[in-house]
Amino acid sequence: MTAGGENASVPELPEHRYVITFGCPDRTGIIARISSFLAEAGGLIVEAAYHSDLDSGWFFTRQEVRADSLPFDVEELRARFAGVARSLGAESDWRIDDTAERRRVVLLVSKEGHCLYDLLGRVASGELDVDVRAVIGNHEVLGDITRAHGIPFHHVPFPREDKAEAFGQVRKLVDEHDPHAVVLARFMQILPPELCEAWAGRAVNIHHSFLPSFVGARPYHQAHTRGVKLVGATCHYVTADLDAGPIIEQDVMRVDHADSVADMVRKGRDVEKVTLARGLRWHLESRVLVHGNRTVVF
Amino acid sequence: MTAGGENASVPELPEHRYVITFGCPDRTGIIARISSFLAEAGGLIVEAAYHSDLDSGWFFTRQEVRADSLPFDVEELRARFAGVARSLGAESDWRIDDTAERRRVVLLVSKEGHCLYDLLGRVASGELDVDVRAVIGNHEVLGDITRAHGIPFHHVPFPREDKAEAFGQVRKLVDEHDPHAVVLARFMQILPPELCEAWAGRAVNIHHSFLPSFVGARPYHQAHTRGVKLVGATCHYVTADLDAGPIIEQDVMRVDHADSVADMVRKGRDVEKVTLARGLRWHLESRVLVHGNRTVVF
Amino acid sequence: MTAGGENASVPELPEHRYVITFGCPDRTGIIARISSFLAEAGGLIVEAAYHSDLDSGWFFTRQEVRADSLPFDVEELRARFAGVARSLGAESDWRIDDTAERRRVVLLVSKEGHCLYDLLGRVASGELDVDVRAVIGNHEVLGDITRAHGIPFHHVPFPREDKAEAFGQVRKLVDEHDPHAVVLARFMQILPPELCEAWAGRAVNIHHSFLPSFVGARPYHQAHTRGVKLVGATCHYVTADLDAGPIIEQDVMRVDHADSVADMVRKGRDVEKVTLARGLRWHLESRVLVHGNRTVVF
Amino acid sequence: MTAGGENASVPELPEHRYVITFGCPDRTGIIARISSFLAEAGGLIVEAAYHSDLDSGWFFTRQEVRADSLPFDVEELRARFAGVARSLGAESDWRIDDTAERRRVVLLVSKEGHCLYDLLGRVASGELDVDVRAVIGNHEVLGDITRAHGIPFHHVPFPREDKAEAFGQVRKLVDEHDPHAVVLARFMQILPPELCEAWAGRAVNIHHSFLPSFVGARPYHQAHTRGVKLVGATCHYVTADLDAGPIIEQDVMRVDHADSVADMVRKGRDVEKVTLARGLRWHLESRVLVHGNRTVVF
Repeated sequence: MTAGGENASVPELPEHRYVITFGCPDRTGIIARISSFLAEAGGLIVEAAYHSDLDSGWFFTRQEVRADSLPFDVEELRARFAGVARSLGAESDWRIDDTAERRRVVLLVSKEGHCLYDLLGRVASGELDVDVRAVIGNHEVLGDITRAHGIPFHHVPFPREDKAEAFGQVRKLVDEHDPHAVVLARFMQILPPELCEAWAGRAVNIHHSFLPSFVGARPYHQAHTRGVKLVGATCHYVTADLDAGPIIEQDVMRVDHADSVADMVRKGRDVEKVTLARGLRWHLESRVLVHGNRTVVF
Repeated sequence: MTAGGENASVPELPEHRYVITFGCPDRTGIIARISSFLAEAGGLIVEAAYHSDLDSGWFFTRQEVRADSLPFDVEELRARFAGVARSLGAESDWRIDDTAERRRVVLLVSKEGHCLYDLLGRVASGELDVDVRAVIGNHEVLGDITRAHGIPFHHVPFPREDKAEAFGQVRKLVDEHDPHAVVLARFMQILPPELCEAWAGRAVNIHHSFLPSFVGARPYHQAHTRGVKLVGATCHYVTADLDAGPIIEQDVMRVDHADSVADMVRKGRDVEKVTLARGLRWHLESRVLVHGNRTVVF
Repeated sequence: MTAGGENASVPELPEHRYVITFGCPDRTGIIARISSFLAEAGGLIVEAAYHSDLDSGWFFTRQEVRADSLPFDVEELRARFAGVARSLGAESDWRIDDTAERRRVVLLVSKEGHCLYDLLGRVASGELDVDVRAVIGNHEVLGDITRAHGIPFHHVPFPREDKAEAFGQVRKLVDEHDPHAVVLARFMQILPPELCEAWAGRAVNIHHSFLPSFVGARPYHQAHTRGVKLVGATCHYVTADLDAGPIIEQDVMRVDHADSVADMVRKGRDVEKVTLARGLRWHLESRVLVHGNRTVVF
Repeated sequence: MTAGGENASVPELPEHRYVITFGCPDRTGIIARISSFLAEAGGLIVEAAYHSDLDSGWFFTRQEVRADSLPFDVEELRARFAGVARSLGAESDWRIDDTAERRRVVLLVSKEGHCLYDLLGRVASGELDVDVRAVIGNHEVLGDITRAHGIPFHHVPFPREDKAEAFGQVRKLVDEHDPHAVVLARFMQILPPELCEAWAGRAVNIHHSFLPSFVGARPYHQAHTRGVKLVGATCHYVTADLDAGPIIEQDVMRVDHADSVADMVRKGRDVEKVTLARGLRWHLESRVLVHGNRTVVF
């Protein structure tokens, strides 16, 4: 209850920016090369982050440039930056994203709704400014809330004996939107290797444990049996290796002896949904650079 | 993504229980008196908590008893327990709640929707098993999502020059439901003293700072100016003294120099909604005992 | 910098108390039986905690009674309480500790000193009121600081080819003090099964990971390779099963891509020492009840 | 207990580096200018951080350069960089520190020893590689532990009626070491304005509350009375305005109704000492840039 209103105001249109992400073997002069290129074009850097990984000898950077400070468009920027990248020995390990292109997202769900409710609320309130193209569920139960938000819901049943066809159907429904992120928002089916590959670097999962503890099924049961004093959640990229992909974000919550498995499940939901939302936001803002099985989060 | 399904199962009906909360000046034999009374009636205590406050010399307890373990109903339990309480010198500082009586809740909101979305999601998914009777907003903007959940929404405009009538209208809309909790879910109006009194011990507010820091308006602006390294939220009972009522729950989240006020507002939302949900659950489960301006949370 | 002095005052002598810990199969009337026994003797309960574990059907309690409120001494209390315990079917699963008996502790260390420095500082400042009888190290390096605190230090070298004799020597040095706790304060040797058994329920270890993640050697290296976003520490009872004993306490700390293994080691130290100190305090205050491989921490 | 030994190894000598910190009004080309200057000299940037503060329009950077990658020494680097700074309109708001110059520290204490014990332990174990020149106490009680670490201890009594002379003595004892940091490690005297000025940007205090809550004396008593659910600590630069200087670091710890003031004091100590150690490390590593009353911590 407050007399003021810092939150109630209409948000301004976000500034139009280009986001450069880049990685190459470390050496002298990389920052100078990239920043000089931008400065010569008049580019105003709004946010810049660098990381030299001493173990791997790799260099990473992410830079946000005001679009209106440059005298050319994003295609021209990409064409010119390709030369810079080539001169630094990074033919392909870079990307330039345009914030004017709204991020497209498809969500995969089962019966558990807390992550879906949370993401839809963030989108509806404008906090997460993305275009949720579709929600696909292997159960029907979350259809109503999805449609109430004006988003198409597709029910794809997963018969125990033959999941290949179901996955084929899911793939078609996803790929027609060419989404920036395929979010497994407590989707209780294991993606087959070909989908892991097709969506590599775009499939974002929330696992309901502090990985690498409690890989696989029923992690809260595992946690209860082990008697841990904290439960957690892990947002990570999906790879063919179950629950072993690059970790984007993790968080934990305290539990104690009085918490049953059901209590841990309930408390864990708050960690899951917040951790997923945070990881997804960073992914969509091009803040996550993957190198091997580790991530740099700028 | 998991092959299992600990969360997906249909929850069992919660056990029918009676919840005794009790406070009196501390002395020898209180636990013995209460537990003997229950044991003699065959009452199975499922959860018991005690606290002796050495500063104030006050004793507090909360006990959950399985309803089917007692040979009489809740009215008879109350009548009999009144004798126990009297013998311990606690005429009125006790209560027995029946979990079979579903908790009624009315929500007050303004424009900011994150707490409302969050609570509605918890109710819809069955995590928070309460009866949201109505949502009242001084703006219309959250009406659609409320109605999508099948809950009545009342728009009560608050003209700057005369809020008394608006509050009168709100009071009528709230009181007809005799709710167990009136939740100020980022309601941006200051309750007048008579409403604070009428709803004493039932009006639950979420303040968007780690109180007592940043009382009043625009706490994130205050926090940004002061340069704090953590922002927080406080769930508390509303009293006539602004943002100074008994605290039920608090939590914080890390921020740094790179966070603008808008970033702090956004990050803070996750703390606010989770802190409010936790505090509200405890309140509705009769876990919060107020003594002076402090709370015991069992 | 403060004008006041709440911390600077000389602490009062702690009150003389008896601490009862007790476990038995759950049923109606246990609390009544125990609390009536105490009330009849005039015992003033200063702190009481109960837990009914619905999964295992086990009941746990811990109670602190003011010694001067009882008309007999601790031996008589034990003799009388034995009858209560027998009547509840708990022949042996209970204990009564006397806070007047100062807790004796022996510490085992290697080269890493942060946990030792921390514990010695707590003892020296009076925060941890225990009697550190001896520190035993398989290296000499921590001898000086130990002796500076007026505590005997024993150097027991552990030759790679024959550790049995060294462990025999350690055992002798430990057992002559009959300590309430044998603390493995970053002791880098694996206890042989016979010592695990001899010190069962008294050997407290700090493991430098959030177990069950990263069991065994070099957990920070493992954590770095996996790319986790939090590192942790686990205080647990030592059993013959490596790093798998009942967990007393855990905590975590945030790390990110910029943290090398050395940074994680450094940051992790603060979690280790605080987690160990917390777990050790609870153990010495008889707050930790073990049931199977889980703990109840009151 | 672990078979391995990642922590036990002898640390390598830290690399010799120059640390540039710099601030100026934001504009296009600053990063390019600085990084080109370094690249042209062959400087290998090991760590680089940038921040554009959109509110104040100020630009901040911190860069670590390997000393052996440059063909000249630190004096020459400073001379050359002065030209760069001048060309960017930052005559004086920059500094170049040489990690080869060991950091000198003087500690001020009263009776409470937890922060002192903690810092001495970090120094003794090599974790905090600084030169503690002296410890000055307004009580004698912490003299023995200080001398046991081989560090001079000066007892300067503070008579209630005349503190000016005592402060004069402290100043002399401090200033002869020209320390990089004067640490108020729970020093219970308020620095007079002239010392705040003399040591501006070097006097680091730990306040035992989550500021701006509970300014001044006896913050844990204040916190207990208010009934907060978390207690905290704040590491900040000392200014003439009591407990209101720029905040370097803060942290919190959960408390509940069962915690007396003494419990809060005890639990708070762990937060205080860890928060102070973190803030002090950042200060000594030139990671903290002050702008107005806020800090940028790289």
